[in-house]
Amino acid sequence: MRDVAIIGIGETKIGELWNQSLRELGIHAGLGAIRDAGVTGEEIEKMYIGNMSAGRLINQEHIAPMIADYAGLDDVPAVRIESGGASGGMALAQGYMAVASGIHDVVVVGGAEKMTDVGDEEAKKILSSTADWEWESTFGATFDSLYAMMARYHMRKHGTTKEQLGMVSVKNHSNGALNPNAQFQRAFPLKVVLGAPPVAEPLGMFDCAPLSDGAAACVLVSEDIAESYNGEPVRILGLGMGGDHMAVHDRRDIDAMKATRHAARNAYDMAGLEPKDIDFAEVHDNYTISEIMAIEDLGFFSKGDGGPATERGDTSLNSKISINTSGGLKAKGQPVGAVGINQAVEAVIQLREDAGDRQVEDPLYGLTHNVGGTGASAVVHILERWS
Amino acid sequence: MRDVAIIGIGETKIGELWNQSLRELGIHAGLGAIRDAGVTGEEIEKMYIGNMSAGRLINQEHIAPMIADYAGLDDVPAVRIESGGASGGMALAQGYMAVASGIHDVVVVGGAEKMTDVGDEEAKKILSSTADWEWESTFGATFDSLYAMMARYHMRKHGTTKEQLGMVSVKNHSNGALNPNAQFQRAFPLKVVLGAPPVAEPLGMFDCAPLSDGAAACVLVSEDIAESYNGEPVRILGLGMGGDHMAVHDRRDIDAMKATRHAARNAYDMAGLEPKDIDFAEVHDNYTISEIMAIEDLGFFSKGDGGPATERGDTSLNSKISINTSGGLKAKGQPVGAVGINQAVEAVIQLREDAGDRQVEDPLYGLTHNVGGTGASAVVHILERWS
Repeated sequence: MRDVAIIGIGETKIGELWNQSLRELGIHAGLGAIRDAGVTGEEIEKMYIGNMSAGRLINQEHIAPMIADYAGLDDVPAVRIESGGASGGMALAQGYMAVASGIHDVVVVGGAEKMTDVGDEEAKKILSSTADWEWESTFGATFDSLYAMMARYHMRKHGTTKEQLGMVSVKNHSNGALNPNAQFQRAFPLKVVLGAPPVAEPLGMFDCAPLSDGAAACVLVSEDIAESYNGEPVRILGLGMGGDHMAVHDRRDIDAMKATRHAARNAYDMAGLEPKDIDFAEVHDNYTISEIMAIEDLGFFSKGDGGPATERGDTSLNSKISINTSGGLKAKGQPVGAVGINQAVEAVIQLREDAGDRQVEDPLYGLTHNVGGTGASAVVHILERWS
Repeated sequence: MRDVAIIGIGETKIGELWNQSLRELGIHAGLGAIRDAGVTGEEIEKMYIGNMSAGRLINQEHIAPMIADYAGLDDVPAVRIESGGASGGMALAQGYMAVASGIHDVVVVGGAEKMTDVGDEEAKKILSSTADWEWESTFGATFDSLYAMMARYHMRKHGTTKEQLGMVSVKNHSNGALNPNAQFQRAFPLKVVLGAPPVAEPLGMFDCAPLSDGAAACVLVSEDIAESYNGEPVRILGLGMGGDHMAVHDRRDIDAMKATRHAARNAYDMAGLEPKDIDFAEVHDNYTISEIMAIEDLGFFSKGDGGPATERGDTSLNSKISINTSGGLKAKGQPVGAVGINQAVEAVIQLREDAGDRQVEDPLYGLTHNVGGTGASAVVHILERWS
């Protein structure tokens, strides 16, 4: 197995991008990554595009060759990867394997989603189709309410407070204010966060990430040729994936995500690292409770200590471990199928020390954590600074 | 890069399976493959599921972990691969790379589609969303009419006749009559085929494959452990992928498929073989004209000789090269996202010499060819008999 490096990154600003189509977003991100890497179109052998639901959102399946085509890369075979919210991270994983296997030398991985054209209600319905439609969503169990149940259980079992949930949001908005590509570039005090209207108790508006438009891309090459291109490389050191029951009611525990735990264990094993070695992580905070569970399940804090750790400031920028320096899904935004690639883009920016005011000091290892559905899929990558 | 073998296969009968849900079809095929291979659930490290449009067809995205879950494999990370009609073949390719890279030792690849629950008109509309929706389908250019244009052009340029198109259908129905899993197990004379109602001239009803329900699965392992399981192994010797413009009007030629040509060249190079070495092939005959173009683009016959070759009987069972021994999409059926895996299943059956009355004599190499959209994606695999 060959080692693999990311040598180019690109992403759109995330937001309600009503003046840009999915294909335009995909091209913008893809060409950004290609320019950053300094590869030519002829060198690109394969594209993987993470996307949750273009068929329902914009009436177009088979979007991967469409994006390749409009980027002028019609000779490049392009495949869509779909794992709900983990589509982007899973696309990165496929790209990794395509290069590591020796089948391809230069691969582009991207993610793109256009959530806002169908209206909020329809967008939430489509998102809910990544939970178990027949046994959950049909009966009114939306994403919001399923995560609210996890939050209630976590609060009852571990004493996690509504204030601690709110502090996740405050931190991520504070980081997002420093990210020019974030959807919400504004910090909010805890009082505002806690005073926001309820969505599904105990989760309020500030506990829920938006549904956004956006795209992101990375160029992957085998490690031995990484230095022959322009872009400063970053090494992919570890990769792990995990699965779980589709429906929340089938799971043994709902204060933890089995898929995340398995993915993390596999990624740490492959990288030869432990949680304490990681300097920063982009975790899947589609809800504030998700970040609390994630930082526990990824081994940064013990189970039940996620809330108190957040309250102690242990997850703030340049504290014990910097979590969601990009602003996370909460503030950077949630273009669902692109999220995993957006996370990788942030990790590369940090490891290149290009993050400006939100720069983690002297980072060596970064981790990205991407979840599909309500936790039936998870994928974790560990990235390493090049030199 | 490690070599990879298929050690287990399973598939459902293809048809209008109104009494079985997508998850039931997926489980049936998957458990069939697992039983055939003799692997245990604990050994399976990853699943890839090819599927075109479960989001629109059954209101469920993120179907890969759903199928894994209901098969009792909730610990197994499962990812959906979507490339329109080439979803199955692309899923096989990802499974190949996952094992070849050394990341995984035992992987299940599957394909599943439920086309018939939404009615014929809606199913055709959804299929058309794998062409370019914004620039083709919106204006009424259905799959049928786009392929009809290719047929007209091929007829004008190369003298291909309506009778030769019909003979593809006659041959594939004749093969399908020998396949217990085929949707249509009945042979038809040319007179019936040519007398069928027109769909989009020059294509009649017998020139068009049905839209079907069905699922298929294979178990892949690294070659060095292949013999330690029950199932008789078959080696994956070559793999190639190709791309093209999404919209037919953007392509330079429409009597050939660039994506198929690129995919074939890559697969032959990787296998170290030439077209003349191949004993049989499952090609993507969603329309009769597709088979004519495919057998030319795959190098079995020169451009323009596809029609005459069919007329000469060179593609019949145990002639020059046996094409679509399973019955192909035309007679075996077209569960869209499963097709590429159905093709691999037939190739394994043939190479194991388990095909009964439709057995190719003493086969050494088989090829599978799977197309997405109207040709914007293609993937080719070359399989080799084990001993």
